[in-house]
Amino acid sequence: MSLGTKWIYHVKKLSTANIPAALIENGQNRVIDASLTLIRERAKLKGELLRALGGVKASASLLGVPLGHNSSFLQGPAFAPPRIREAIWCGSTNSSTEEGKELNDPRVLTDVGDVPIQEIRDCGVDDNRLMNVISESVKLVMEEEPLRPLVLGGDHSISFPVVRAVSEKLGGPLDILHLDAHPDIYHAYEGNMYSHASSFARIMEGGYVRRLLQVGIRSITSEGREQGKRFGVEQYEMRTFSKDRHILENLKLGEGAKGVYVSVDVDCLDPAFAPGVSHLEPGGLSFRDVLNILHNLQADVVAADVVEFNPQRDTVDGMTAMVAAKLVRELTAKISK
Amino acid sequence: MSLGTKWIYHVKKLSTANIPAALIENGQNRVIDASLTLIRERAKLKGELLRALGGVKASASLLGVPLGHNSSFLQGPAFAPPRIREAIWCGSTNSSTEEGKELNDPRVLTDVGDVPIQEIRDCGVDDNRLMNVISESVKLVMEEEPLRPLVLGGDHSISFPVVRAVSEKLGGPLDILHLDAHPDIYHAYEGNMYSHASSFARIMEGGYVRRLLQVGIRSITSEGREQGKRFGVEQYEMRTFSKDRHILENLKLGEGAKGVYVSVDVDCLDPAFAPGVSHLEPGGLSFRDVLNILHNLQADVVAADVVEFNPQRDTVDGMTAMVAAKLVRELTAKISK
Amino acid sequence: MSLGTKWIYHVKKLSTANIPAALIENGQNRVIDASLTLIRERAKLKGELLRALGGVKASASLLGVPLGHNSSFLQGPAFAPPRIREAIWCGSTNSSTEEGKELNDPRVLTDVGDVPIQEIRDCGVDDNRLMNVISESVKLVMEEEPLRPLVLGGDHSISFPVVRAVSEKLGGPLDILHLDAHPDIYHAYEGNMYSHASSFARIMEGGYVRRLLQVGIRSITSEGREQGKRFGVEQYEMRTFSKDRHILENLKLGEGAKGVYVSVDVDCLDPAFAPGVSHLEPGGLSFRDVLNILHNLQADVVAADVVEFNPQRDTVDGMTAMVAAKLVRELTAKISK
Amino acid sequence: MSLGTKWIYHVKKLSTANIPAALIENGQNRVIDASLTLIRERAKLKGELLRALGGVKASASLLGVPLGHNSSFLQGPAFAPPRIREAIWCGSTNSSTEEGKELNDPRVLTDVGDVPIQEIRDCGVDDNRLMNVISESVKLVMEEEPLRPLVLGGDHSISFPVVRAVSEKLGGPLDILHLDAHPDIYHAYEGNMYSHASSFARIMEGGYVRRLLQVGIRSITSEGREQGKRFGVEQYEMRTFSKDRHILENLKLGEGAKGVYVSVDVDCLDPAFAPGVSHLEPGGLSFRDVLNILHNLQADVVAADVVEFNPQRDTVDGMTAMVAAKLVRELTAKISK
Amino acid sequence: MSLGTKWIYHVKKLSTANIPAALIENGQNRVIDASLTLIRERAKLKGELLRALGGVKASASLLGVPLGHNSSFLQGPAFAPPRIREAIWCGSTNSSTEEGKELNDPRVLTDVGDVPIQEIRDCGVDDNRLMNVISESVKLVMEEEPLRPLVLGGDHSISFPVVRAVSEKLGGPLDILHLDAHPDIYHAYEGNMYSHASSFARIMEGGYVRRLLQVGIRSITSEGREQGKRFGVEQYEMRTFSKDRHILENLKLGEGAKGVYVSVDVDCLDPAFAPGVSHLEPGGLSFRDVLNILHNLQADVVAADVVEFNPQRDTVDGMTAMVAAKLVRELTAKISK
Amino acid sequence: MSLGTKWIYHVKKLSTANIPAALIENGQNRVIDASLTLIRERAKLKGELLRALGGVKASASLLGVPLGHNSSFLQGPAFAPPRIREAIWCGSTNSSTEEGKELNDPRVLTDVGDVPIQEIRDCGVDDNRLMNVISESVKLVMEEEPLRPLVLGGDHSISFPVVRAVSEKLGGPLDILHLDAHPDIYHAYEGNMYSHASSFARIMEGGYVRRLLQVGIRSITSEGREQGKRFGVEQYEMRTFSKDRHILENLKLGEGAKGVYVSVDVDCLDPAFAPGVSHLEPGGLSFRDVLNILHNLQADVVAADVVEFNPQRDTVDGMTAMVAAKLVRELTAKISK
Repeated sequence: MSLGTKWIYHVKKLSTANIPAALIENGQNRVIDASLTLIRERAKLKGELLRALGGVKASASLLGVPLGHNSSFLQGPAFAPPRIREAIWCGSTNSSTEEGKELNDPRVLTDVGDVPIQEIRDCGVDDNRLMNVISESVKLVMEEEPLRPLVLGGDHSISFPVVRAVSEKLGGPLDILHLDAHPDIYHAYEGNMYSHASSFARIMEGGYVRRLLQVGIRSITSEGREQGKRFGVEQYEMRTFSKDRHILENLKLGEGAKGVYVSVDVDCLDPAFAPGVSHLEPGGLSFRDVLNILHNLQADVVAADVVEFNPQRDTVDGMTAMVAAKLVRELTAKISK
Repeated sequence: MSLGTKWIYHVKKLSTANIPAALIENGQNRVIDASLTLIRERAKLKGELLRALGGVKASASLLGVPLGHNSSFLQGPAFAPPRIREAIWCGSTNSSTEEGKELNDPRVLTDVGDVPIQEIRDCGVDDNRLMNVISESVKLVMEEEPLRPLVLGGDHSISFPVVRAVSEKLGGPLDILHLDAHPDIYHAYEGNMYSHASSFARIMEGGYVRRLLQVGIRSITSEGREQGKRFGVEQYEMRTFSKDRHILENLKLGEGAKGVYVSVDVDCLDPAFAPGVSHLEPGGLSFRDVLNILHNLQADVVAADVVEFNPQRDTVDGMTAMVAAKLVRELTAKISK
Repeated sequence: MSLGTKWIYHVKKLSTANIPAALIENGQNRVIDASLTLIRERAKLKGELLRALGGVKASASLLGVPLGHNSSFLQGPAFAPPRIREAIWCGSTNSSTEEGKELNDPRVLTDVGDVPIQEIRDCGVDDNRLMNVISESVKLVMEEEPLRPLVLGGDHSISFPVVRAVSEKLGGPLDILHLDAHPDIYHAYEGNMYSHASSFARIMEGGYVRRLLQVGIRSITSEGREQGKRFGVEQYEMRTFSKDRHILENLKLGEGAKGVYVSVDVDCLDPAFAPGVSHLEPGGLSFRDVLNILHNLQADVVAADVVEFNPQRDTVDGMTAMVAAKLVRELTAKISK
Repeated sequence: MSLGTKWIYHVKKLSTANIPAALIENGQNRVIDASLTLIRERAKLKGELLRALGGVKASASLLGVPLGHNSSFLQGPAFAPPRIREAIWCGSTNSSTEEGKELNDPRVLTDVGDVPIQEIRDCGVDDNRLMNVISESVKLVMEEEPLRPLVLGGDHSISFPVVRAVSEKLGGPLDILHLDAHPDIYHAYEGNMYSHASSFARIMEGGYVRRLLQVGIRSITSEGREQGKRFGVEQYEMRTFSKDRHILENLKLGEGAKGVYVSVDVDCLDPAFAPGVSHLEPGGLSFRDVLNILHNLQADVVAADVVEFNPQRDTVDGMTAMVAAKLVRELTAKISK
Repeated sequence: MSLGTKWIYHVKKLSTANIPAALIENGQNRVIDASLTLIRERAKLKGELLRALGGVKASASLLGVPLGHNSSFLQGPAFAPPRIREAIWCGSTNSSTEEGKELNDPRVLTDVGDVPIQEIRDCGVDDNRLMNVISESVKLVMEEEPLRPLVLGGDHSISFPVVRAVSEKLGGPLDILHLDAHPDIYHAYEGNMYSHASSFARIMEGGYVRRLLQVGIRSITSEGREQGKRFGVEQYEMRTFSKDRHILENLKLGEGAKGVYVSVDVDCLDPAFAPGVSHLEPGGLSFRDVLNILHNLQADVVAADVVEFNPQRDTVDGMTAMVAAKLVRELTAKISK
Repeated sequence: MSLGTKWIYHVKKLSTANIPAALIENGQNRVIDASLTLIRERAKLKGELLRALGGVKASASLLGVPLGHNSSFLQGPAFAPPRIREAIWCGSTNSSTEEGKELNDPRVLTDVGDVPIQEIRDCGVDDNRLMNVISESVKLVMEEEPLRPLVLGGDHSISFPVVRAVSEKLGGPLDILHLDAHPDIYHAYEGNMYSHASSFARIMEGGYVRRLLQVGIRSITSEGREQGKRFGVEQYEMRTFSKDRHILENLKLGEGAKGVYVSVDVDCLDPAFAPGVSHLEPGGLSFRDVLNILHNLQADVVAADVVEFNPQRDTVDGMTAMVAAKLVRELTAKISK
């Protein structure tokens, strides 16, 4: 049993008799409502300000989802969002992206804060409703033009509710560029349909995607390859990266789709470049490989996520926090216009 | 300029002209209201459940205040609350306190979650109003009988708004047992009245305290000693701990006051026992010294805080997180009845 | 399923049909026999040498038991024995114990090497037979006068087969001085009768003990206290250590018993002194406290163990390895004569 | 004087007179015999099982050689084998190799355990006989068709006895692909003919090799280059790797030889990818470079080793253990069929 | 206020009245004179020896400049020179460079020791005069034929006085190959003209340079690009490294200039290769990339520096110290002849 | 052969013939002279300033001796002085000592900088002359009334030349309070008369001491105890600390001697309190134990040293640097008046 649900479990165990079911259910509903209200108000303030400033077509807006319990191995990604934020603004670097966007410009980057995951789970809300809260939060951000969600995970299970929300909100399927060491496409992992190893199975089943490109893959089972074929996924494995490199550094995505979504699992990088991840899988991309792919991507990026950074495995000086932050910075440059 | 206020600063710099002041102010008010609503609802659910279960006179309820910007040196304590929670429930230990209270019993310990500090500051709310939000949050917890706030810092600046709220809510001054390497009683530190080095000056000025006992002191300037005298503080320095030990292990507090508040700065411990703090000050208390003081304290503890744990300085395996967690566990046993 | 049994599990899964049960069973028996022969021959050589040198009444002989799978939390203690040996002979210290015994004198300390735990388990041998192999190994050492086993764990589950062997070999119950943060006396832990949290339940049930003193206890549940009462254990908790100190620093044990056994769980020490353990439980003994107890113990120590050192949690420079090694060194001085 | 021989040294010093030489010599012989019996029995059980399962032509079988004393600098590689095993089966990755072999299939990978190096040396056995024990152990594995030895070092000195055994057993010279930062081909290092810096001088002198390719070289003295020429070694230095890459990613070896042996010194990798080595030599191969060479190697790999992983220099989360484990995993795929 | 000037500041604050200005000024002058005398004598002894040995045209001579206070972020580079020296001679590697120069040959490498920066600043000497002391020290080395300065930083601010001295001594402008993540060409940083972020602005203004090539750039603001244009700097950014690589690996510099200067900021490397720097900027060069550029550079290298290694951020085993040391070793090979 | 003497060794090896002995000898003399001149000038400036300020009777003056090569195990203490200085002034603590002295007051604490040990040794100066340079440097400090040397080691070998200088300068023997895990009183260690394990043998032989009290001893051989008796040393071992505590916390020293010298080896502390030392010897003093001894010492402390802090073994956040710094701070309070 995971931490977040411990308290309510013991409440129920203690005395199912004398606590009316409605008491718990009403309380949960009120907590969820208040959580969404808080996100709505934060998004609204940022949206109003940008619209008052004017001249912005699209602006990246950070939304943290500190959720780690759908990882089968370690739960540290739940601690990532505040650490990534700190690294984005760390005094050791300046506020320009590599191609010259100014992150200090409020029209380029805003922040909607975190979905209060721990607080909601501690009230006994199950994963099904929790995923709905995440989807709902993403939609609240998108409602405030010109904000576009740039989500800070959390483990990779969060990509499902985020992609679902983006696709539903835009009214059709997306193209997804998915950088990862793993395909995350098991039907279920240890019985968990919401596992971080199954998010792309859920995404494909939901019909939220036109093309799914997976890049950086180097830990894949026969089930992973079969699911890939079944769903028509374009899987680029690291074994053949030197010959695929040319294609991947010249991608054009999104034509005919409602937009392009980029999902970056930090473990797409070799552990040398990003030691702060739960799954150390040698043989991955260099940081420059990733930037070359992103910088050269021709696409209208409507939303993105950076997931699976695990601060509990990072170096003392936070090297991987800086890596995750730079991914967020460069994705911001990609999204904002 | 600290992180949380960077965005709004650049908004204002960019164009004070075309953004109506009311737009920002209304947005801030709505975000603060939503934040307080979320805390109110969480506290209410926990309170309703405990009252339905019945038979509880006092129950510790965690309230996280992830605020680090009032530290003059490092801001890591802002990351502490989720790490302390994880350590409280860590699989490496059981759920009993040393004297036999069961933390798994929902009547003993509940959790109201975190005040969304980063989110509020990012909207440009200043420290004066932020401190009010913290006080307000504490009162919301206390409104839900039989919950008593056990606050997870955060740097030590948060003790001021917490103590203020407790005293105002109970209608009179408290006795405070304050364990710390420093007296935190500067009039102001580097011009900051809300500095973590000044919280007890604010507390004393406010009249929220009858007796203030400071234990573990070993980094104190002449101003610290003068302020101590001025406010009538009982300062027990480490230099004389071996002869003061008998008094401190037999304290009786709170008679004639509205209750007793315990504020534990993790750096009261020697760095050998708690390396994960911003201010490494050798020559402190052992963990057992602290427990001996707390276990033998005769008092009705109405609220408490554990502050200044800095996860960015902890050992890789989280030794200080376990230390902070055990302090919270034993304080829970002290509070709940 | 733990690592050691993975291979045989998959063999069986693959084709129970065409592999005769006898093939596996015979193979296992031959591997166990060869393992015991290796220990017998090593013990014999050391025994023959000591007897040839002459003049030795009792000599500590190291026996490593690299077993970690009966820990409910981390399995690192399986890696401890070679690290403790390295630290015993580390160039940073000399070869004298605090009271002047010379460890370089072969009459004081010998080494019988490790029981090949991983190799035996990998052949599919179950815990019941594995515990018998450990007991058998201990007896092989004791057969070679004047060797007395000083066992290097491994997790605490190994104390059961070791104590059993010592008691059976000496023909009666022992007195045990048990230093630990936990009583390790659950009837079973998560269904495992051989759990490191249950070893002293097995020891007490087996009738191998006359008096059991537990010192350093600070993580104990109601079951732990009840089992303690049921078995007549003398539990000294850290809460009252300052008043128990005088008794514990003047112990006289073993009169009327077949000898005294000392079992030191490294986590009896406060994590400040021994961070390299699986269970960080603040508020423990100082290293000097432990030495004061051991140095002043009046007893004929017939065997001992040092368990639960976890190298995967140690500091980079191996502080806890040095701590475990010094415990072994001082126990050697206690045993040898 | 190294640790393993300390005890017997002091025995001899103490009284050469009254201990008959035969006593020691006979004891050593019995310990060596028992050690080899244990390996024989473990290999035999694994061989019998595979033959009973049927359909396997070649199967990788792990043999650990925890020997570190022939390193001139640090001796940590003696602790490597158990850590590599743990990482192979670590829950953070699955059981498929990059090209789809299933390590959980007992026909693909078995384990014969460790040669008890420390125990044999502690009896005073010298390096000459120790090297023979290693060679003998390798032959015992090869006797059990279809097992092929995949040796876990230990320092690089072990490659000499392993290659010698493989060549002698197959009845002729091998081709060797040797990945390393250093040529390890000094005639002797600090007077030690068995030094880890001299193993390939011994191998070449013995006539066990037809072609020796050294790849990744970037720390080489004039003696290293001269010995290379003298023995006809094909040395590929990192200085020219970008132009040699095409050759090295298309190697075909072993035609006319008795088979191909692959020796991977973990320090062939740049320290960024493998910090856990004794000799940090910047400018090495990336992990993907190594995999590209191995995946594309056309050869019948009859045996292999992975050496010089030093757990005492690894990152806290074991990045290099994962690297060494993945090298073993991919070499398993190369060997097994 | 930085450490070095704290003492004199308090002296002045305490009593400007009764301390004659001449007392301080004379003392400062005597300390500076003595510092330069010490460097002169050390350089002279090394020069005399080399000239007595004969046959040396150019020889690299280490000069440490332990100065860190002109960094805007961290001051650890002040601790670098002794750590780099230790790593150069570390027992884990030999004394040959990759192309076969012998560092043990006194004709190849000598050491003039450190400029006593801390001692001079502690006397209240300001940065203007301190920079002059550094320039003077460099000239003292160059006066002793055939010594050529190979400077160990310190932060990057030291390149200005070093380049100035080299150019003035040689009587004309140099070509500079500058490897760095940042252009260090701000007019001033936070008001500091001597900032490590402004050294190349000072260098360009001084007319000490003919061509300045900047390689590895990936953190640059609009001011950085404008200053680059203004001064005619050839800026090679990492974004386009894959297409620039051919040019950079075939550089020919120095024709028409007084010689070539190489300035290596360790953070030109990706943090994966060099974590021990103050500014972790992902996406940098690999160590081999840097060596390929240096090995293939056609130039008469008259002086060089290796700066911004920060030991306080290095890994426990000093990976970055080894990286800095190898840069120094390979630059030594480039300089000496 | 240690680092510092490598270069001159190779010079001599290369061609003893054509380099006149006088050239080297003269050069060495000039370098030594310049080194002493630099120290003289720095001391003189500080002395002149203090005398101009007036009213100071005794003032602690830091003198760094970065010498580590006389350690038998690790040489890291050579890097200590700059790290201790940084920690003294670290922003995490204030400038008051525990009993209220202000370190910011220039009359309380000055700094003469470091003896350039590495630079002198690199010129081939042997240990005999090097020890003379250290003694000479100490005398230069003492010549400048009211400065009293507070020496920052370095390994413990430096205490011999420092004590010799102080005694010679004051014209008679001293009383020494020596806090250490080891007596450092071997006649010689591995043939080295200047070993850090022999400094107190040299001191006693020289007649520089009237009473020598050793406190904290817990690693001592029979030779250590015999030498102790031979020289009349008062050895207080940790085994009996609980009963000696009262004596040690009430010491009165120096009556009839020329003054009292305090030598603090950081490893007198338990490794829990000071992990950054070369010799981890569990069972030591707590930091408060040491302060209690020092605060209560009745004595005129004329000089002191803090040695054996090894930054290469410290925690990442420099806990032991803070410990060494606080020892220096409290000794400053003891010395200055």
